Amino acid sequence: MEHGHLRDDERGFGERIQACGVNEPVSTYLTRCAEFHSAPAPGLLIGAFMVDYALELLGAVPTEKLFAVCETPKCLPDAPQVIAHITTGNGRLKVLSIGRFAITVNRASDKPTAEAVRVYVDLEKIRQFPIIDQWFSNSPTFNKHTMGVSLQEEIFRTGRNLLSYEKVRVPVKFKESWKPVTCPCCGETVPDYMVVDGKCGACGPLKYYEKLL
Amino acid sequence: MEHGHLRDDERGFGERIQACGVNEPVSTYLTRCAEFHSAPAPGLLIGAFMVDYALELLGAVPTEKLFAVCETPKCLPDAPQVIAHITTGNGRLKVLSIGRFAITVNRASDKPTAEAVRVYVDLEKIRQFPIIDQWFSNSPTFNKHTMGVSLQEEIFRTGRNLLSYEKVRVPVKFKESWKPVTCPCCGETVPDYMVVDGKCGACGPLKYYEKLL
Repeated sequence: MEHGHLRDDERGFGERIQACGVNEPVSTYLTRCAEFHSAPAPGLLIGAFMVDYALELLGAVPTEKLFAVCETPKCLPDAPQVIAHITTGNGRLKVLSIGRFAITVNRASDKPTAEAVRVYVDLEKIRQFPIIDQWFSNSPTFNKHTMGVSLQEEIFRTGRNLLSYEKVRVPVKFKESWKPVTCPCCGETVPDYMVVDGKCGACGPLKYYEKLL
Repeated sequence: MEHGHLRDDERGFGERIQACGVNEPVSTYLTRCAEFHSAPAPGLLIGAFMVDYALELLGAVPTEKLFAVCETPKCLPDAPQVIAHITTGNGRLKVLSIGRFAITVNRASDKPTAEAVRVYVDLEKIRQFPIIDQWFSNSPTFNKHTMGVSLQEEIFRTGRNLLSYEKVRVPVKFKESWKPVTCPCCGETVPDYMVVDGKCGACGPLKYYEKLL
């Protein structure tokens, strides 16, 4: 959002949030999410409403220790990160490549499982919102260049009305204890539980780069 | 960091950054990273120095379109997210469970590969810094309750001095085109390329919750 040339959906973003009647705290969430993500991606904006809804259903505030599972890697994971400190790096966010637009949020627990709330885009409800529906289903009739602003306005006006939720139970993951192991190939140390076939992952199946000389 | 009861490593965090002579922009990065992560985790603080170094080596600024691979899920991934808009949700961040404390950063490219810089904690250099060394190697001599502040000070004073880098080449990933497929089990739609054995992942191997009635 701080980049030089603004696209249509970026220009007037803040004014549009207000004009479409989005209240606090979601209006601030939307702005912070778009800044972090570096674009006001539609899925991210819906994600901000989803996280706000999940917090309310749990009776939680963003400063509590919360955990989440996002069922898609696309856009949605940035909403719990920005809004509720549920981040990739602090281990409270898990992202699964399922491809459903859903997020499950729970409080910290010392039990093996925790009660959680799963908030999702409801495919029955979405039909009432034609632009969101076209975008969401990746329809060829949706043109992001000409319809981006209308989509954003429909998302702001719709808010939670395309969402549903269910109560679920999720497993609680505890920190693994570890010892460092030296990889015989690269000589670097990795935690013992990440060793694959006697080597670190980068010297095995997770190799992702070539050295340049 | 906004939570009620501050731990020793949180109290005086900002003052310690200054007292240890950390300059801008890293001093601001450190504060923003700790706030996002909700704790000034040692690995995150080192990560802020690593991302700053990677940007300088690339001659890049945080507002450019950049990509990164983190070789550990622990703490480090939050540094590129906060500093350079390389986020889980915008698809520019990849996290691999290798367990090495390293990050590879590259610019956007329309070629199949991109030149990148890999910045890592250098196991030879780290020996000069005894508290960091004990913490990093998960030594039983490191006590996070009594040594947390000293560790933080050593990290701030050490800065880049425990890091090394190498130039590498990484593959460039392009967006996949997709069509929605309705899962025969749950009735929800997912992108075709995420379907597993004719079902969505949540109705198959990625199932992670039980419904509560």
